[in-house]
Amino acid sequence: MTRKIAILGATGSIGKSTLDLVERSPERFEVTAVTAATNVETLAQIARRTGAELAVIADASKLQQLQDLLQGTDCRAAAGSEGMIEAAAGEAELVIAAIVGCAGLRPTMAAVEAGRTVALANKEALVTAGELMTNAAKANGATLLPIDSEHNAIFQCLVGSRDEDVSRIILTASGGPFRTATAEAMGAATPAQAVAHPNWSMGAKISVDSATLMNKGLELIEAHYLFGLPSNRLNILIHPQSVIHSMVEYVDGSVLAQLGSPDMRIPIAYALAWPERMQTPAQRLDLAAISRLDFEEPDMTRFPALRLARQALEAGGSAPIVLNAANEVAVARFLSGEIRFPDIVGAVAEALSRSRHDHPQSIDEVLQIDRATRAEVEDYVKAGAC
Amino acid sequence: MTRKIAILGATGSIGKSTLDLVERSPERFEVTAVTAATNVETLAQIARRTGAELAVIADASKLQQLQDLLQGTDCRAAAGSEGMIEAAAGEAELVIAAIVGCAGLRPTMAAVEAGRTVALANKEALVTAGELMTNAAKANGATLLPIDSEHNAIFQCLVGSRDEDVSRIILTASGGPFRTATAEAMGAATPAQAVAHPNWSMGAKISVDSATLMNKGLELIEAHYLFGLPSNRLNILIHPQSVIHSMVEYVDGSVLAQLGSPDMRIPIAYALAWPERMQTPAQRLDLAAISRLDFEEPDMTRFPALRLARQALEAGGSAPIVLNAANEVAVARFLSGEIRFPDIVGAVAEALSRSRHDHPQSIDEVLQIDRATRAEVEDYVKAGAC
Repeated sequence: MTRKIAILGATGSIGKSTLDLVERSPERFEVTAVTAATNVETLAQIARRTGAELAVIADASKLQQLQDLLQGTDCRAAAGSEGMIEAAAGEAELVIAAIVGCAGLRPTMAAVEAGRTVALANKEALVTAGELMTNAAKANGATLLPIDSEHNAIFQCLVGSRDEDVSRIILTASGGPFRTATAEAMGAATPAQAVAHPNWSMGAKISVDSATLMNKGLELIEAHYLFGLPSNRLNILIHPQSVIHSMVEYVDGSVLAQLGSPDMRIPIAYALAWPERMQTPAQRLDLAAISRLDFEEPDMTRFPALRLARQALEAGGSAPIVLNAANEVAVARFLSGEIRFPDIVGAVAEALSRSRHDHPQSIDEVLQIDRATRAEVEDYVKAGAC
Repeated sequence: MTRKIAILGATGSIGKSTLDLVERSPERFEVTAVTAATNVETLAQIARRTGAELAVIADASKLQQLQDLLQGTDCRAAAGSEGMIEAAAGEAELVIAAIVGCAGLRPTMAAVEAGRTVALANKEALVTAGELMTNAAKANGATLLPIDSEHNAIFQCLVGSRDEDVSRIILTASGGPFRTATAEAMGAATPAQAVAHPNWSMGAKISVDSATLMNKGLELIEAHYLFGLPSNRLNILIHPQSVIHSMVEYVDGSVLAQLGSPDMRIPIAYALAWPERMQTPAQRLDLAAISRLDFEEPDMTRFPALRLARQALEAGGSAPIVLNAANEVAVARFLSGEIRFPDIVGAVAEALSRSRHDHPQSIDEVLQIDRATRAEVEDYVKAGAC
């Protein structure tokens, strides 16, 4: 039986990997809708290749261009926020939510409210709107399948278990490029040094998050909302080889771990085929060739982002939104050379301490807090306050 | 709801660990039957402590003594083969099959034929009668729950999966005391050197099996019957720390692993509580303290037992019985100083090459092949033929 899928963010890295898998197993899938932010040429190519019924470009000024590119096909072109929501809540039973950033919030929520199975690659959905998303999923019978390698690993390790049998979740972290660096060296770190991630090839922003370990802090928040465990039962373990993607410890002392090559097609395939599995071309794990795996506790002094993220998780409400927004602004300022590496976390701490604790009731309120935080952080970063 | 359990082999190591767990969770379990081979005093104590309704001593000459020791209790004493089968196929829904050696075959089969959930710690049940046991389990609706740490790990990693989604099973092996020894040193190895297992404290026979890696060969055969995979999808990986107890690789490239401290109460608890889990006092795994895990391919030249076991697995029928019986005789001869370390595997190879290929149809036939092999191997080991 073919499964109808919509790919939100089809031109990005997760979108491409999804298409690669879907096109290798054409008998399993029917792509019904694809979306992109601005890359209208690639979107049109994908729509033609997959035979999608709907192609949506977020940038409404490119609608005419998309229509032209799709001439002669049965694919309908749409644009803007309404088009994105139509793609998310359309006929597809499985929605790949791979839009980057807060732009993904409304379409993702639309898919959740439509009761779809949502393969989540949009971090913001859980970091900034975790409670809203998981409540909406419960209310509408939607299933959230994390695509992020860590959360996907945890999801796999939890299959068939009862909530009360889980003792704790252990998120692994590579430790990033500064795992063994001194605090002094980190103080003088350049953007080029910070984006040199040891195991995964990623964009600049997320690479800096790996250097501060803020990525792991954000994942801690995601794990909290996805799996319902409190902060004190969510641990972080440094594992430089990133072969074990994460673990679950059970009350009997058993630990289940998911391991694999660093290939995002593995967690994507898990989401695509769930609750079954499907073949992928990912390299098989060869532990004898890898030879050794190392583990150490994270250094909370050199990586204060972990402490801040835990604070935000425990505070809940608007705190994770502020953490995330402040971090994005600060990372951009670091990448453009305006602030130093330790100032990233300094700006986030400052934002959290200035922020008024809110409890957003809608995606609109989430987006409002996000925008307000960004404006505020831009201001005081400019003013050199951190 | 309490679960009624029978413990076959209550005075041995697995029996003791089972009792430890049961007595920590008295609200979950009711011990209805306990058995022992010869240790009548300990058996009577256990029967008194647990309030079991039936205590069975295999050694029929000790029945009167058992009756005397149980005076004043409601526990009935029984003995011999019939008593053992009564304990196995009685009212308990969960039977812990922890009798050592071929003596466990008939009671284990009785529990399987009675459609019970059977927690298997008796290696011989699957090595020598794997096809009979698994066919009987299917025919009678019995569930086999492996207690052995490796197979229990695999069982945990398979929860919720479809057979066709499994790519291969990876059995981990510590490599034993001779992992890094030269072939020359192994040629001159003494019994004391061979029983010095690095990670687990075990009996002399099984420690020697860890030194030859025959234990892993036997586990390969068990895994074949338990999980239904052919030889070429059952791999062995040397992992000296024995922290990862085994793994399952899926078709998507995901590998699930079960990890834990070296405490048999973890897999026993899993079998006791399955499909739920229960608390154990086992030490929690601390990977940061362990710091590193190593992996390497097994050396098939220094450890020919692996090749022989695979041959026996592929031949099926009586071959695994011959492998197991010849190995037991040869290990005993090595421990008593009569043959050299490499002669153990030499004797097994000789037994396999001499044996006529049979296809036993009953436990009686299995026991007959076992006895015949032992007699034959005793003879030619005496004659110095290997």
